[in-house]
Amino acid sequence: MNNKIVIIAPDRSLDQWVQALKDENKNLTIEIYPDDTQREETEFILTWRPPAGVFDQYPNLKVIASMGAGVHHIFAQNTIKKHIQVTKIEHPRLATDLSQFVLSICLMHIRDLYAYFKLQQKKKWKPIAYKRPNDTVVGILGFGQIGQSVGELLIKNNFQVLGYSSSSKTHENITTYHSEQQLPQFLQSCDILVCLLPLTSKTRGILNKTLFDQLKPGCYLINVGRGAHLEEDDLLEALQNGQLSGASLDVFTEEPLPQDHAFWDHKRIQITPHMASATDPFVVSEQIIANLERLQQGKAMKNRIDQKREY
Amino acid sequence: MNNKIVIIAPDRSLDQWVQALKDENKNLTIEIYPDDTQREETEFILTWRPPAGVFDQYPNLKVIASMGAGVHHIFAQNTIKKHIQVTKIEHPRLATDLSQFVLSICLMHIRDLYAYFKLQQKKKWKPIAYKRPNDTVVGILGFGQIGQSVGELLIKNNFQVLGYSSSSKTHENITTYHSEQQLPQFLQSCDILVCLLPLTSKTRGILNKTLFDQLKPGCYLINVGRGAHLEEDDLLEALQNGQLSGASLDVFTEEPLPQDHAFWDHKRIQITPHMASATDPFVVSEQIIANLERLQQGKAMKNRIDQKREY
Repeated sequence: MNNKIVIIAPDRSLDQWVQALKDENKNLTIEIYPDDTQREETEFILTWRPPAGVFDQYPNLKVIASMGAGVHHIFAQNTIKKHIQVTKIEHPRLATDLSQFVLSICLMHIRDLYAYFKLQQKKKWKPIAYKRPNDTVVGILGFGQIGQSVGELLIKNNFQVLGYSSSSKTHENITTYHSEQQLPQFLQSCDILVCLLPLTSKTRGILNKTLFDQLKPGCYLINVGRGAHLEEDDLLEALQNGQLSGASLDVFTEEPLPQDHAFWDHKRIQITPHMASATDPFVVSEQIIANLERLQQGKAMKNRIDQKREY
Repeated sequence: MNNKIVIIAPDRSLDQWVQALKDENKNLTIEIYPDDTQREETEFILTWRPPAGVFDQYPNLKVIASMGAGVHHIFAQNTIKKHIQVTKIEHPRLATDLSQFVLSICLMHIRDLYAYFKLQQKKKWKPIAYKRPNDTVVGILGFGQIGQSVGELLIKNNFQVLGYSSSSKTHENITTYHSEQQLPQFLQSCDILVCLLPLTSKTRGILNKTLFDQLKPGCYLINVGRGAHLEEDDLLEALQNGQLSGASLDVFTEEPLPQDHAFWDHKRIQITPHMASATDPFVVSEQIIANLERLQQGKAMKNRIDQKREY
């Protein structure tokens, strides 16, 4: 029985991952690309941002497991054969952490805490009238499992919440929109727009001038989806002409954000370094080992993504 | 029947207050100190930071109503005769607004959002491991109506919460402490300490070296009580020696905070200009007029404070 996992994640430090996987399964063989051996025997790969074409070196590959909730990186430079099962991390903490992050940013925004931070640096005492959560409409673009968790936490904290998803969804306390026809109505109602979409060929570049122009003027943008959802020049223009009042960005096309990028010292952009939610190897290695065991038993993977939809 | 209110609030702009009170009672006479007339007839004064000794000019004064939740300003430079009823504003929005502000600051703190602001200014990409609410103990010093509201919102958002008050209080979901004997046990458990005490002769200067030394090292302080609760030099020392990791201050002994104050450019102090909760005259004038009518009918005031306790 094949009890091996190959990790392909050239960007990442892997000590914690190796430790966490071994803690789950003592007899596990872990090999790290490019120093792994006998590639014809490898069936299970754990990966983050794999190099172009790398999977072609594994003729008997059966499972590609993402080290995070996103899987776009797996498809970015690789064509994945249809019979290979691609899985993502699914863990309540991811949704909880991300929800708490979005709540923090929404509260900071309506209380102008970023403005006060800058006023302090100028030694300026200037109270600003604040908005309350119940007067603030937050629109969630991408109303899947995580989007719904974010929406529920915001509702619990008195915000008004709307949800938009490509397929029709209903929710007890949240008005939902779907399909391109309903998108304008959704967008024009938002005081804050939160992008939580998966990155697919359909959603790439969706945060662009056409979308911004449909928002209520002065809307605030929070991007916790992926960097490639955003057309960066269109954002700068929308901030310039006041269509957007500001933006909180946690994800970027290139990470770390390059030193010379215009976002760093833009006075209406708040940057966080992709920390809205962090995957803890010691929490999620259990589900990776469980899937390896399912493979050994000939069972289908859990948390498998739909390759057609790419999420 | 005396249908007059005199407003004594030399620091404040009063247009909105006058409009709001008139909206509640069209026949009301409003006079503004020092231009008010026939002081021997005045029975009801609405005030914020009254000048020293001012009430001695009103021989038939029966009610002094504070324009906010705090009343310390009434006693600061005046001795109030025992038969005069002193009232405060009590409105759920005050507690709600203040609770949301404290939640914002607690979330910002555990997510290091203030650190990220400063990293952004240095164009530095540096993810910091975050703490979660359920691993964070918030201690509420002053567990009255507002303190309990803050505690409940924090509990709802997964924080661990402890409450301390001078008199014994119990709460369904929150461990409570009281009396000086229990104070050390309370203090040594807190990751974040929130001061919500009323300002009295007993609590003045309570945030001092003796108290800081009993905290868990690295505790974070939030002062939304009053400026005079804090011994400013002791705070600077506790930040210097690491006993406190930082402080968010919304209230100050002198407001606006003077230009040359050491707090402005202290890297571990976050300043907001007394905006944790704002009293909206259009919301609270109803309860002021209701008390005026109760006075006319010979009934006791609502929201009357206990002059002995000063809150």
